[in-house]
Amino acid sequence: MATIKDVAKLAGITVTTVSRVLNNRGYISDATRKKVHAAMEELNYQPNEIARSLHRRKSNIIGVIVPNVSHPFFAELTNYIEYYAYEEGYKVLVCNSYQNSDKEKDYVAMLKRNQVDGIIMGSHTVETSDYITSDLPIVALDRNLSNGVPYVTSDNYNGGVLATNLLIDKGCKKLAHISGPLEINTPANKRYQAFIDVATERNVEYVIKQAKLDIFESYEKLAYSLFSEHSDIDGIFASSDMIAASIIHVTNKLGKEVPKDLKIVGYDDISLASMIVPPLTTIKQPIEEIGKMSLKILLEIIDGKPVNTESILPISLVERKTT
Amino acid sequence: MATIKDVAKLAGITVTTVSRVLNNRGYISDATRKKVHAAMEELNYQPNEIARSLHRRKSNIIGVIVPNVSHPFFAELTNYIEYYAYEEGYKVLVCNSYQNSDKEKDYVAMLKRNQVDGIIMGSHTVETSDYITSDLPIVALDRNLSNGVPYVTSDNYNGGVLATNLLIDKGCKKLAHISGPLEINTPANKRYQAFIDVATERNVEYVIKQAKLDIFESYEKLAYSLFSEHSDIDGIFASSDMIAASIIHVTNKLGKEVPKDLKIVGYDDISLASMIVPPLTTIKQPIEEIGKMSLKILLEIIDGKPVNTESILPISLVERKTT
Repeated sequence: MATIKDVAKLAGITVTTVSRVLNNRGYISDATRKKVHAAMEELNYQPNEIARSLHRRKSNIIGVIVPNVSHPFFAELTNYIEYYAYEEGYKVLVCNSYQNSDKEKDYVAMLKRNQVDGIIMGSHTVETSDYITSDLPIVALDRNLSNGVPYVTSDNYNGGVLATNLLIDKGCKKLAHISGPLEINTPANKRYQAFIDVATERNVEYVIKQAKLDIFESYEKLAYSLFSEHSDIDGIFASSDMIAASIIHVTNKLGKEVPKDLKIVGYDDISLASMIVPPLTTIKQPIEEIGKMSLKILLEIIDGKPVNTESILPISLVERKTT
Repeated sequence: MATIKDVAKLAGITVTTVSRVLNNRGYISDATRKKVHAAMEELNYQPNEIARSLHRRKSNIIGVIVPNVSHPFFAELTNYIEYYAYEEGYKVLVCNSYQNSDKEKDYVAMLKRNQVDGIIMGSHTVETSDYITSDLPIVALDRNLSNGVPYVTSDNYNGGVLATNLLIDKGCKKLAHISGPLEINTPANKRYQAFIDVATERNVEYVIKQAKLDIFESYEKLAYSLFSEHSDIDGIFASSDMIAASIIHVTNKLGKEVPKDLKIVGYDDISLASMIVPPLTTIKQPIEEIGKMSLKILLEIIDGKPVNTESILPISLVERKTT
């Protein structure tokens, strides 16, 4: 098998120069670069990437930790992160944490061992946040790790305000909000806070239900119990489109008509939102921008640049047929 | 920083033995293992994984190439592959190929440079198949690379038979099949073949439309053109649930009633299938089993074991409310 020495010899230059070309370091003339590539091709020389990583201490791999990549929101987000990472020469290791702290820790350990250059963390348990420090290249998604780790989120409070106001403006008299898990302190809880603030201010009765993250089967059960306890609910703000879709499914079985008997607003605007019947009114998160921004910040940290600790991206209301 | 020599010295054993513990190689007593771990902990020794990979020529990373991880079928599949890979000590690099042969080639090149130990390929262009040889650890999903590369698929022909028979049994007089791209030779084309065979045998009129892969926006356009050309179609077999969901969406806009005016059978049984209104009748692919089996075969190839070239997993008909 050809070595770097063979390439240098054939190209008529030093090993150091070949190494510079391979690592894209220092000034190299186009002529030299061409000579090296021609020699590499002729000798069918494959630079050993692992050895090169060892030298550079860079793997050009980033880790993306999500609760579950089969959840459409995280699937779309991962898709965009991978798209932009590839453009910057990075590969993406995807980890489903299922909110399991061992898997999260395992990835942080990989980071400390230089196997990944940085992590985008869309999942975190309380335990994990204890040993993440702000000197590691980590960007959190929708998570306030409260120890200086930069995070990217969307304007959750405003989203909650728009959704709740719309339901009241459309004539709803008794509202329900189905939130995510509230025991974890996340920016997404501001949707819940905004719902309470608006309903209280506008003097509309309401109830709150908490959904477990990503357990689709549990959403329907939750909807049944909500309707059996409060049959007079006529407006629901769901904290994700997946929850909203489950509710629509249940209302259909119960013979309730959407939006006549019950109005529903979702959150996220995943592709599904416009595909279901009736098409879902929802708060659109800029999923592509969230992915792109997280990656941009992560690469800035990796390159040692200063970054914003907090990035809050705008949301918008998309009215379809459920309100 | 502590080195492997420091660990050996503190544990009172040889460097070779420490290395054996780290690499899980050869017989090591529990007492020795404990001594090594205690010394590592005391010295805060972090074995350099990249250096170890270089030594072992293994990265314990596998690549998974899919057309688009935000497509629910591939999102669910990737989720299962990652789940089982993690259990076997492997991490998963996810690549969205968007059917782009450069990205596919890039991953195969990584494999040749030992950056990944193997690849599960759920996407392939004609070009790529030219330079994939059967001596590389590659498993293809739903793809017949026709050069000895093992592949995993489900019983597509039988799926097509069940779907088409159901539509005819339910009284449909004019059928349509919306297939995936037929110019690529994939086992999924057998759904199309089965549709034609059954419709012909049972003497029922039919039309065929081809959908582009993964371009959800194009599905609705296709549905509109189908109904404008053939307003009398009363039964559709769609080659994916995403296509079926788009059709339901369009029929709703056109004022057609499902299943009264039009019966629809999808394919895949992604989570969405039971969540949409009306819940979709579909051919269930065993997505978890497909992911698990692909991984199992890939690890067998990596370990130098002989494997089945063709694995065809069973499908089943799930009748819901669209037929």
